[in-house]
Amino acid sequence: MKHFLHVDDIDSTASWLSLAAECKKEPFKFEKKGKGKVLGLLFFNNSLRTRLSTQRAAYHLGMHCMTMNIGNEGWALEFEDGTIMDQGKAEHIREAARVISQYCDVLGVRAFASLKDREKDEAEQVLHGFKKYATIPILNLESATGHPLQALADLITITEYQQTTRPKVVLSWAPHPRALPQAVPNSFAGIMKNNPQFDFSITHPKGYELNPEIVRDIPVFHDQNEALKDADFVYVKNWSASRPYGAVLSDDPHWMITREKLGKAYFMHCLPVRRNVIVEDAVLDSSNSLVIEQANNRTFAAQVALMKILESL
Amino acid sequence: MKHFLHVDDIDSTASWLSLAAECKKEPFKFEKKGKGKVLGLLFFNNSLRTRLSTQRAAYHLGMHCMTMNIGNEGWALEFEDGTIMDQGKAEHIREAARVISQYCDVLGVRAFASLKDREKDEAEQVLHGFKKYATIPILNLESATGHPLQALADLITITEYQQTTRPKVVLSWAPHPRALPQAVPNSFAGIMKNNPQFDFSITHPKGYELNPEIVRDIPVFHDQNEALKDADFVYVKNWSASRPYGAVLSDDPHWMITREKLGKAYFMHCLPVRRNVIVEDAVLDSSNSLVIEQANNRTFAAQVALMKILESL
Amino acid sequence: MKHFLHVDDIDSTASWLSLAAECKKEPFKFEKKGKGKVLGLLFFNNSLRTRLSTQRAAYHLGMHCMTMNIGNEGWALEFEDGTIMDQGKAEHIREAARVISQYCDVLGVRAFASLKDREKDEAEQVLHGFKKYATIPILNLESATGHPLQALADLITITEYQQTTRPKVVLSWAPHPRALPQAVPNSFAGIMKNNPQFDFSITHPKGYELNPEIVRDIPVFHDQNEALKDADFVYVKNWSASRPYGAVLSDDPHWMITREKLGKAYFMHCLPVRRNVIVEDAVLDSSNSLVIEQANNRTFAAQVALMKILESL
Repeated sequence: MKHFLHVDDIDSTASWLSLAAECKKEPFKFEKKGKGKVLGLLFFNNSLRTRLSTQRAAYHLGMHCMTMNIGNEGWALEFEDGTIMDQGKAEHIREAARVISQYCDVLGVRAFASLKDREKDEAEQVLHGFKKYATIPILNLESATGHPLQALADLITITEYQQTTRPKVVLSWAPHPRALPQAVPNSFAGIMKNNPQFDFSITHPKGYELNPEIVRDIPVFHDQNEALKDADFVYVKNWSASRPYGAVLSDDPHWMITREKLGKAYFMHCLPVRRNVIVEDAVLDSSNSLVIEQANNRTFAAQVALMKILESL
Repeated sequence: MKHFLHVDDIDSTASWLSLAAECKKEPFKFEKKGKGKVLGLLFFNNSLRTRLSTQRAAYHLGMHCMTMNIGNEGWALEFEDGTIMDQGKAEHIREAARVISQYCDVLGVRAFASLKDREKDEAEQVLHGFKKYATIPILNLESATGHPLQALADLITITEYQQTTRPKVVLSWAPHPRALPQAVPNSFAGIMKNNPQFDFSITHPKGYELNPEIVRDIPVFHDQNEALKDADFVYVKNWSASRPYGAVLSDDPHWMITREKLGKAYFMHCLPVRRNVIVEDAVLDSSNSLVIEQANNRTFAAQVALMKILESL
Repeated sequence: MKHFLHVDDIDSTASWLSLAAECKKEPFKFEKKGKGKVLGLLFFNNSLRTRLSTQRAAYHLGMHCMTMNIGNEGWALEFEDGTIMDQGKAEHIREAARVISQYCDVLGVRAFASLKDREKDEAEQVLHGFKKYATIPILNLESATGHPLQALADLITITEYQQTTRPKVVLSWAPHPRALPQAVPNSFAGIMKNNPQFDFSITHPKGYELNPEIVRDIPVFHDQNEALKDADFVYVKNWSASRPYGAVLSDDPHWMITREKLGKAYFMHCLPVRRNVIVEDAVLDSSNSLVIEQANNRTFAAQVALMKILESL
């Protein structure tokens, strides 16, 4: 039984990419693989792309989906051990995860970072709670610290559009009015690190350091212009600061991506994207933007991850 | 590729009605037509009949449905161009519509009138935003100014029950405690106008004028009793005033439909209906009421619209 | 046409249990039974087990499910006759039930007790409203006074684990911070009474009397220790008082179930369960706990009830 929790769960980039291309060419080619299997999708947070693309992927595989907004439709879950549950939480993850495992064959979970309690977020309290107590494979639909389905879709997109064997890929921070998690940049940096054929670097204002265990010796620039020079792909994303945890230290509009800054590079973003805050209209509406194709590849990233899970059952 | 946005998208009443009758007689007759096709249903507003009947119709055609309450489950959408998106809206229709188009083959959208901004409502900001940016056919599940699936179901119902070749059909305003859109009366008046075999007229208090481009030379009475005389079908509905836009100018209970007023005519309403406000119990509980059959025909109206869309793919 | 509203609707325990065992052994054995049939699931209240297990059961039978949170996604329903509907309720049960009956072949309804209006709760205003006006079979997904699918799953579980021909089964009240309905204990007591092969008794503090029509000559103890002596199965559940209706008269932690109190007996609970309030961790985490298996049997209880309904169509 295999989970898909982290970009490190992609055991062979080449084989996953080749399977994704096969699924994209002929989406229903493997429609018997999931026959009789139920995919549960639990949302602790909102979702558009993940919700619909994962359902579409399951449909391509002949799986049956049961989608649930667990907070609004079910019961508030307790994740702490040993507590006296006389407050707002009606059910413990120990029961919930084991129970749901009996109704589903694979379980997708989306649970964002709180951005309030670093320790719980870094411990992936929700995702790892399900991993620990569920008896079926878990599919990460974006957790506190990672969004591996997004990173896989991004990797598929880059390989489709790369024109050189060693393209330069830059991950750039951009401003945003609200504090956002680091899940997407973490997973993107992680998948780039796992694929050293890319010339990868990161740029962000001081104070916005990503997880040092992921970054390690990836070059980091605090001068965005220097970082973007001669880039082939510019992946843009806001994230909140690591110290103080979850803070918005800067809303400097000079970090917004413009047509001029981008030059000939492709523009990437996981969406949803705030126009004229993260990036100007002229970029999104140009042929340099790959955001729609990234979203399209979410379906095939999910389809491959589900196939790998199904094969492990 | 054909959309179904407006009653004018019914290109041949005879052929649509005949197909509806065929579907009603044998609901699964065309169950292979939608094989492998995904119908997305996006709800910006609540829905009971539309939600369930459209899913049922899709099921009859072998289509797979993905339903989403976009406001609560996804991201708030921006429809204005050129804005700096630093407020509450997280995603622009330009991205959302193109992205969703990649996960679905047909997209149903429900988005009521705001009743606050006449210009945006009349421009059908949401529905036409999806039409403009989506790359798949759009199915109107009730928009700011129209509800063509309801009108088609109403037309099916009238043709099933008409006893003369030129029945008299009257659309009557009735009181309601809250301001309601004009979508249903607009589409009903529109489909009646497109089918001049009906002797159609409208009655409402002064100040409740419907869209003059639809009404044109349809007779309008401000005296309900005069209008209802010798009617065969009385279609009742509340709507809010056009000036001031969205206002409730009258709650005059004398406009409520009673057994006495109705006489031998059939009573029609799109539902939900407020008993003893719009119409008295005695009417709804009599055999003159067609409201349940109208709701039943919603399934076959949706099935025909979906078939026409599927054939155009 | 048969409804499944109450434990008394189980016409032959032996045949239902035998069918449940057959379904559990080979879940897809009857996957053609529900072909072309639509199961509507209407939730007036939250649900995890019922929502997912009933969908899973329907999937095993080849039925198509349409799930709806009726309060949030549809219209507030009026259940009183003769009212002038000028307040918050937009649609009457008379219309809603008949309309939904046209889109579904079987209709599941979940509607908890208000715990405010005893008369309406005991009259099962919502469930019986649907039963009265719908034209299709109704499946009780937990109503104001009963939860027969839970009781059937509990009975299946007991018969799987019983080691003697006449096991001693005790239903025990336990403390809880909020007022809860009597639906689960009512149905459990009811199904035990219908199966006199069990040595069944009830224990609760004074003031927590269950429905006297169900209890009749079932032994009731106010001394929990005395009741639990030599028990084989201890079914634990909180419920609120009958006088004053819906009150929390006691939160006495001495009624919590401990490892010591339980002895060698099996522990049962319908879930969700509050740890260290209803029962201590040591019980739930021991092999004496059957709660996960009870939840598993929810699928097969629902599957049998749906099969019996389908056979009656």
